[in-house]
Order: sequence, then C-alpha cells, then structure tokens
Amino acid sequence: MPRYKLVLEYDGGPFQGWQRQHDAPTVQASLEAAALRFCGEQVQVTAAGRTDAGVHASGQVAHLDLAREVTVETLRDALNHHLRPQPVVVLEASAVSDDFHARFSARMRHYRYRIVNRRAPLALERGRAWQVPRRLDAEMMHEAAQHLVGQHDFTSFRSALCQAKSPVKTLAQLAVTRSGSEIDICARARSFLHHQVRNMVGTLKLVGEGRWPVGQIDAVLAACDRAAAGPTAPACGLYLVQVDY
Amino acid sequence: MPRYKLVLEYDGGPFQGWQRQHDAPTVQASLEAAALRFCGEQVQVTAAGRTDAGVHASGQVAHLDLAREVTVETLRDALNHHLRPQPVVVLEASAVSDDFHARFSARMRHYRYRIVNRRAPLALERGRAWQVPRRLDAEMMHEAAQHLVGQHDFTSFRSALCQAKSPVKTLAQLAVTRSGSEIDICARARSFLHHQVRNMVGTLKLVGEGRWPVGQIDAVLAACDRAAAGPTAPACGLYLVQVDY
Repeated sequence: MPRYKLVLEYDGGPFQGWQRQHDAPTVQASLEAAALRFCGEQVQVTAAGRTDAGVHASGQVAHLDLAREVTVETLRDALNHHLRPQPVVVLEASAVSDDFHARFSARMRHYRYRIVNRRAPLALERGRAWQVPRRLDAEMMHEAAQHLVGQHDFTSFRSALCQAKSPVKTLAQLAVTRSGSEIDICARARSFLHHQVRNMVGTLKLVGEGRWPVGQIDAVLAACDRAAAGPTAPACGLYLVQVDY
Repeated sequence: MPRYKLVLEYDGGPFQGWQRQHDAPTVQASLEAAALRFCGEQVQVTAAGRTDAGVHASGQVAHLDLAREVTVETLRDALNHHLRPQPVVVLEASAVSDDFHARFSARMRHYRYRIVNRRAPLALERGRAWQVPRRLDAEMMHEAAQHLVGQHDFTSFRSALCQAKSPVKTLAQLAVTRSGSEIDICARARSFLHHQVRNMVGTLKLVGEGRWPVGQIDAVLAACDRAAAGPTAPACGLYLVQVDY
C-alpha cells in the first residue's frame, strides 16, 4: 500500500487533542473522516506528536496508507476540501517509502511557546498565546533555560499521565527571546515527556517574574518530583512547529 | 473635562466596523458601553480611523472625555474589565490636552495588509489574513506599488460610499515584502479614501499573479474610474497598526 506523509497546520482550540476519542472532536478523527470521504477507506492517520487538547500545530507531521496511488496534489486538496470548515489543513503531502513512520522515524521535534507579556488581555491573539501581565525578564528566563538543556531526568517536568518508559530525555535547545511584548520559547528535542514543554515554561515564568532565582532550576531538576517545578503553562501558547526525519 | 487618549487592539471579525449603528455590534458601541459601566456617563469615543466591518486594529487610537479625573491605569483596566469577553482591548491610556483630537490631530496612519500566499486554506490565521493560492511575485507587486506612492487623484481606488471632499491623497509609503508564504503590505499616509488600501491591494494582487503588467498601474490611476482598478481585497487581511500625532 502506498504511504503518504502529511505536513499539517491546525488550531488546537476546538479539539480535544490529536488522538481519536469516543465522544470528543480530535484532529486525528477529523483527518480520518476526511480520508474516508475522499477514498472510501477506513484509514489510520499516525502523527509525530500526539498533541494535547488546545495545543496548536504549524508543522505537525503524520502518515497514512491508501489502497491505491494518488497524486500528492490530489491527496492534499481532497483532504483540505473534506476537512472544511474545521481548522485543520494539509500544507503538504508527499509519497514516502513504507518504512517511514511519522512517530518512530522522527529525529527531532521543534515546539514553540508564545507568551504575550502585557497588562491588557489579548484581542487578536486570544487563544493563540499565554498572556502574562507581570513583567518578565526574558534574559533571566533564557539563562535558567540553559540549565535544562542536555540529558537529564525530567521527572520534575513530567505529567502524572506520561506513558514514556524513561524520564531521561535530551533537550537539544531551549531558547527564550523577547521581541516587544512577545516572548518566544523554542524547545527542540528528539522527544519530550508528556507536558514537558508546558511544565518547563511554567517554571521559567516564575524565574522571569523574579519569584525564583535562576539557580533554583538545578534544585528542581535534582528533586525528581513534579511538585518541585512550576505550574503547567496553558495549552493555547504551545505550537508543534517542525519535525525532522 | 479631562480628555484621555486610548490605544486599542481589536479583532474586527465580530463587528460591523468601528462606527455605532442601531442594530449591529460595533467597536465604538462596545467601548461606549464599557465607559458607561465604568463611570455611569454617556461618553462619546472618537477614533482616528473608522475601520470597516471585519477590519482589525493593533494600534487604533481614540479619545474620550470624562466628567472627572481618573488614573490612566484605572481607566485602562476598568475599560478592559467591562469590555470582556469582547475582543477589544485598551493597550494604553494617557491623559491629553483638550485640543487633542484622535481623528483631526492625526498626522499619519499606518495600515498593514497580510496575505498568506499558499494553496492550503488557513487554519491558524483564519480571518486574520487573505489566503491567495496562486503564486504572487512580491517584488513585482512592490515595483507596481511605487507607482502609487506620492500625491495622486485616487478616484480609481475609492469606494462609491467615500465621503472625503477630495480624491487627492498623498501616499507616503506602500511597501510589499515577502517572508516565506506571508506577504506584507505596509501603507502609510496622513489619510486614506474609503477602501483605498483594500482596493490598492486587490490591484497589486493582479500584478503579482502576472495578470497585469506593472505599467498598467499608471493607466489605472489616470483613468480616475473605480472600474479600472482591481477588486477590493477582503477586510480580514487589513490592520490599522499605528497612528502618529
């Protein structure tokens, strides 16, 4: 069966995350329903990252197998047609070999977390970023973030629901930059624990507010205890932006 | 009476434009209702630009007079409180002298028009940009735009509903830049005719698609006939981003 790779953009707001569920709208279910309408087949769509409820994507990657070959333009346009009016779109479709697996072949995942650091609520970016009223020191957040880069036991940043076998992950990058009132946090790793990015962001925010010293990050990591880290940052600020193979 | 200047951000999508109307939600009505709830007064809020239905703002400016002085922080926060959950926010409030007029004192208005130039529909930027599937040559659009910069009779780019006394305006800047699939058009002038930016963008798009040569812009201007120019670009791509005094 021919296998196709899809690059996806979606607004996570209306969805209960990626993964198919019985009674809730999910991105996977929307794509599988669109594929069924297109080719009459029950196909399974497998993603690189099973994003949580409310988390967005501008470069999620998924794969699916079809019974017969189609052109990649037809696949992209037909899925987009059947996905309307849901906020999920196929940016690109390409033919891949059958040993390509969106999840297991991924070498690197890139997430972006957006904070808007201002007193006024969000009008244009509502549901697209985390509004933090108290002034954040982005340079201090960046300095603290460097303590998380590398291979560590990230138990302190791991959701109780996490199914990963090991809490040890290698964080390739965690960079905090400010541009005006917008603070961007770029996180890059082969794989992440459940809620890891949002838990790291929630912790860095405490440093940025001056409530925690930079050095506390080492103690948080060493504690190997979720209660030692900061709260989970809201889903609406998180974007899966790129997956490398 | 003390006068206050407000800098506003809003999502134009749910509104029938800036200006108060009998039976439709407008940005002005939302602000005046919030001011009434705050201070118990019927105040009039006057804007620099009476944006059309669906047009957004990240830096609209308005002024209002109150019966008694309040701190600017109180004014900003109280209006934002009473504006919820509508997507209109006060970014900044400041005290100004009573000869300040948001509309008549404005020296320069800055608009931004956002195009996303790609085949796939928009998921994250839906209602925030104009999706144009056919490949646009942004450099050609920029070259054509330079023919519009300066003082001209803009009758060809003027809506039939325009109330301006003269069709002669001085366009200080019209710059087209591409970054990936995003094309940004920055327009700057002391004032604009009704629909002028959207009509210029709709015309530049025809040049970008290769359907019209760059030189046709001069003929369009010279025609002084709305029918000579391209169609009106959709409201959802337009933002009032800054007003200078």
